[in-house]
Amino acid sequence: MEIERKFLIKELPDLKLYPRKRIKQGYISTDPVIRIRQMNDTCCVCLKSQGHMIREEFELGITKEQCDALWNKVDNPPVEKIRYFIPLEGDLTAELDIYAGRLEGLLTVEVEFPSPMDASNFTPPDWFGADITHDNRYKNNYLSVYGMPS
Amino acid sequence: MEIERKFLIKELPDLKLYPRKRIKQGYISTDPVIRIRQMNDTCCVCLKSQGHMIREEFELGITKEQCDALWNKVDNPPVEKIRYFIPLEGDLTAELDIYAGRLEGLLTVEVEFPSPMDASNFTPPDWFGADITHDNRYKNNYLSVYGMPS
Repeated sequence: MEIERKFLIKELPDLKLYPRKRIKQGYISTDPVIRIRQMNDTCCVCLKSQGHMIREEFELGITKEQCDALWNKVDNPPVEKIRYFIPLEGDLTAELDIYAGRLEGLLTVEVEFPSPMDASNFTPPDWFGADITHDNRYKNNYLSVYGMPS
Repeated sequence: MEIERKFLIKELPDLKLYPRKRIKQGYISTDPVIRIRQMNDTCCVCLKSQGHMIREEFELGITKEQCDALWNKVDNPPVEKIRYFIPLEGDLTAELDIYAGRLEGLLTVEVEFPSPMDASNFTPPDWFGADITHDNRYKNNYLSVYGMPS
């Protein structure tokens, strides 16, 4: 089970302080979500149920060769982004995504929670912008098909 | 985690006694396994790691419409079979598959176990044939690509 909330960015923190990874992902299917992702040199395929804040999710590690072979099942261009991992209070981590390619200019941040109550009680830091947890247009499967939200 | 053993059939039991379901399944990918399955009127998509007796497996229920849409990602013809559910000693169930279509004539039986030790200690009933747990040719992803084992 994946419990998370997603926000836009009001003000970028100083990114030099935090670890980052390069992500390239594509969707074999967007409904249900069947996603392949390469994060630095690590690849996985992921199956997700529909939903906003709470979703079932299963991720399976695969080799680079398996991942490369699965790209021919992806119809839309890949979503590419740099993800920064920023520690927050309460042992939480903000995953800040800076998109590239045709999504350049888009910035979002996600936080994963141990329980729905933790998610509801979360007070976003000042640098977080609007809560887009329930806005389909910012889901990466929608972004891969429809591009930048207008 | 899925722990199971698979056998050929020496002698068919009296099938009139047992419940059965019609299964049609196809493979979006065979390595890793990304499988869609329709069992009677219930559909699911399933992600499995490689392996023989022990595999990671995650199954997500989907609608008939989602399932139908995913068939265009399947390259090979579907595997079709009737599955009979036959109770065995020790609260186990034999899942006996009678294949149809281009696999007509093939019969296999699978048993799922709560632990690797239960799997190792299992004594097959007299009507079970050769143990094909480790024989790739009888895996349904191989059957879907290569057809009947020669």
